[in-house]
Amino acid sequence: MPLLVVGSVAIDNVQTPSDRRDGLLGGSATHFSYAASFFTPVQLVSVVGGDWPPEHTELLRRRGIDVSGIQVVPGGKSFRWTGRYERNMNDRETLDIELDVFGRFEPSISPEFRRAKYAFLANAAPVTQLKALDQVPGCRLAVADTMELWIQTTHADLMTLFQRIDGLVINDSEAKMLADTENLVLAGHRVRAMGPKFVVIKKGEHGAMFFSEHETYVMPAFPTENVIDPTGAGDSFGGGMMGYLAQQDNFDPESLKTAMAYGILVASFNVEGFGLERMQTISREDIEDRMEAYRKMLSF
Amino acid sequence: MPLLVVGSVAIDNVQTPSDRRDGLLGGSATHFSYAASFFTPVQLVSVVGGDWPPEHTELLRRRGIDVSGIQVVPGGKSFRWTGRYERNMNDRETLDIELDVFGRFEPSISPEFRRAKYAFLANAAPVTQLKALDQVPGCRLAVADTMELWIQTTHADLMTLFQRIDGLVINDSEAKMLADTENLVLAGHRVRAMGPKFVVIKKGEHGAMFFSEHETYVMPAFPTENVIDPTGAGDSFGGGMMGYLAQQDNFDPESLKTAMAYGILVASFNVEGFGLERMQTISREDIEDRMEAYRKMLSF
Repeated sequence: MPLLVVGSVAIDNVQTPSDRRDGLLGGSATHFSYAASFFTPVQLVSVVGGDWPPEHTELLRRRGIDVSGIQVVPGGKSFRWTGRYERNMNDRETLDIELDVFGRFEPSISPEFRRAKYAFLANAAPVTQLKALDQVPGCRLAVADTMELWIQTTHADLMTLFQRIDGLVINDSEAKMLADTENLVLAGHRVRAMGPKFVVIKKGEHGAMFFSEHETYVMPAFPTENVIDPTGAGDSFGGGMMGYLAQQDNFDPESLKTAMAYGILVASFNVEGFGLERMQTISREDIEDRMEAYRKMLSF
Repeated sequence: MPLLVVGSVAIDNVQTPSDRRDGLLGGSATHFSYAASFFTPVQLVSVVGGDWPPEHTELLRRRGIDVSGIQVVPGGKSFRWTGRYERNMNDRETLDIELDVFGRFEPSISPEFRRAKYAFLANAAPVTQLKALDQVPGCRLAVADTMELWIQTTHADLMTLFQRIDGLVINDSEAKMLADTENLVLAGHRVRAMGPKFVVIKKGEHGAMFFSEHETYVMPAFPTENVIDPTGAGDSFGGGMMGYLAQQDNFDPESLKTAMAYGILVASFNVEGFGLERMQTISREDIEDRMEAYRKMLSF
C-alpha cells in the first residue's frame, strides 16, 4: 500500500562534539520517507524554495519515493535548520532556524495521493496537519507527530487534531509536557485520553513505549555505540513503523508491535551517520539482520 | 544455594514531591536481601549501632534472611540517610548522611557464611569489599556494586576490586563517569575491559544493559505508573538477579538473561511503595505474574 507523508524537507547544518556537516538533506518528511521506502511506496508532499538543490530531490527519487508532491516556490527560500548537539548526543541547541516557505506551507494533495489509506502528518502546525487530513477522507490509518512549540502555542488546534488521528508519535519530553507529569507511563495514558487511539512515546537511546486501550508496552532501542548524528532519528522511527504497517496493510496489535520494532531498528541505522549518510549504505536485508539480533536480544 | 550479601543496613528518611516517611528500614544490603529472599536463602553481613530498632532486624528475619551476620556496635550509631527526590522521581538530593558505624565497617564473616558460592558486595568502600571477598575464597560468582564517591576518591582500589570480581552492577551515571563517555554501549564495553567478566548498567526507569565478552543487550524496565519511592530500586534489582542465579546455581548466559529480567521485575515492585512497604505485600507468585506479562511484552 502506498504511504503518504506530509511535512518538511530541509537543508540542515549539524554540529556534533567531534564533527560537523553543512548543507545536509534533512527535514522530518525526508527522514520519514527514506526510512519508509525500505518497506512500501512513499508519496511525499512538501514545499521548497527556488534555492533547493535538485540533487536532494534526486536522492529521494532514486529510492523510489514519489516526489511529485514537492511544491517549488520559485522566489522562496527552503527551510533551513542549524543545530548543535551536546556531548551526550541527546540534548541539542537550535542555533538558527529559517522556516521560510515551510512557514507558509499549504499542503495541496494531488488526486492520486488523496486516495492514500496510510498517512503520516510529520511535525508541522496542527492547522497545516488538519488541512492535509481534510484531503484524505478515505485514510484508514492517520498518524501524526508534533512538537513542543505547538503544544505551547496552538494547544486548542492540537486537541482538534487529536480527535481526528488514529495514532500520535511524540518525544518523551513532549509527552511529559502535554500530560503534565514526569511519569512516562502516566503521560502515555493521559495523552491517549486526549483523543488518539494509540500513542507512541519515543525515548531516543532508551527506545519507545506504546499505549492503546488494551496494551501498554516498552521496547528498548537497539544498542549502538556508533552514534554520529541523532537528527531525524524520531522521524526515521516513524517511517520504519508506518512503512511496515502500509506494507502489511494491517494495523492489528501484533502488526503494530512488529512495526514499533522496525521503527526502532531503522532509527538505529539513521543515527550511525550524518543526515542520510548511513541510511544510503543499507538495504532491507541489513534491517532484517538487525531484526534477527533484536528478537534474539529480547527473548530469554 | 545460599547467597551472601555484605553491605549497609540503614535508617532512611525519604521525601518525595507528594509525601515523606521517616525512620524507614533502608540500606543497600537491606533492599538486596529482601529482593533476593523471594528466590534463595540469604546470608546478610552488616553493622548497626546500639540505636538500631530491633523490629527492623525482625522484619528481615521473618523473610527467612539469616541476620546472624549483623554486627551490633553497642555505643555506635546506625547509618542514617535523608534524601529528597525531585519531581521527576529520578534525580535526588542527599540532605543528610551519617555513616557512623558503617564508616568503620570491617566485615567479619562467620565460618558458615564463608562457604558461600554466591556473593554480592553491596555499595561500600572498595577496600571493605575486598576484605569481604578475601573471606570467601571458594566463591563461584562474586558481583559488586559501587558508586561515584569511590570512582572519584578510591579509583586504584576499585581497579583492584574489578580484577577480582565476576560481575559489576552500576548505574548509568557511574558507568559514564568510569568510562569517560556519554554513550552507554561504549561505556559498558570500556568498564568490562577494566576487569569484570560481565557488567550490568542500571538505567532506572529505562531498564538495564548487559555486557559480556560475547553479548551486549538491553532490557526495558517494566512499565509502572505507580512510582512512590525509587530508593533501593537498584539494590532490589541486584537482589532479584543474584537471588535467581543462586537459586538456579547456574550463571550461564541464558540464566544471566533471565536473572536480569527478575531483577527488573523485583525492582518494579520495590518502587511502588516507600522503603520495603510494597515488597512486604508481594509473593513469588506476584513476581511470576509480572514475568508472564513481561515476556509477553517483549515478544512479537
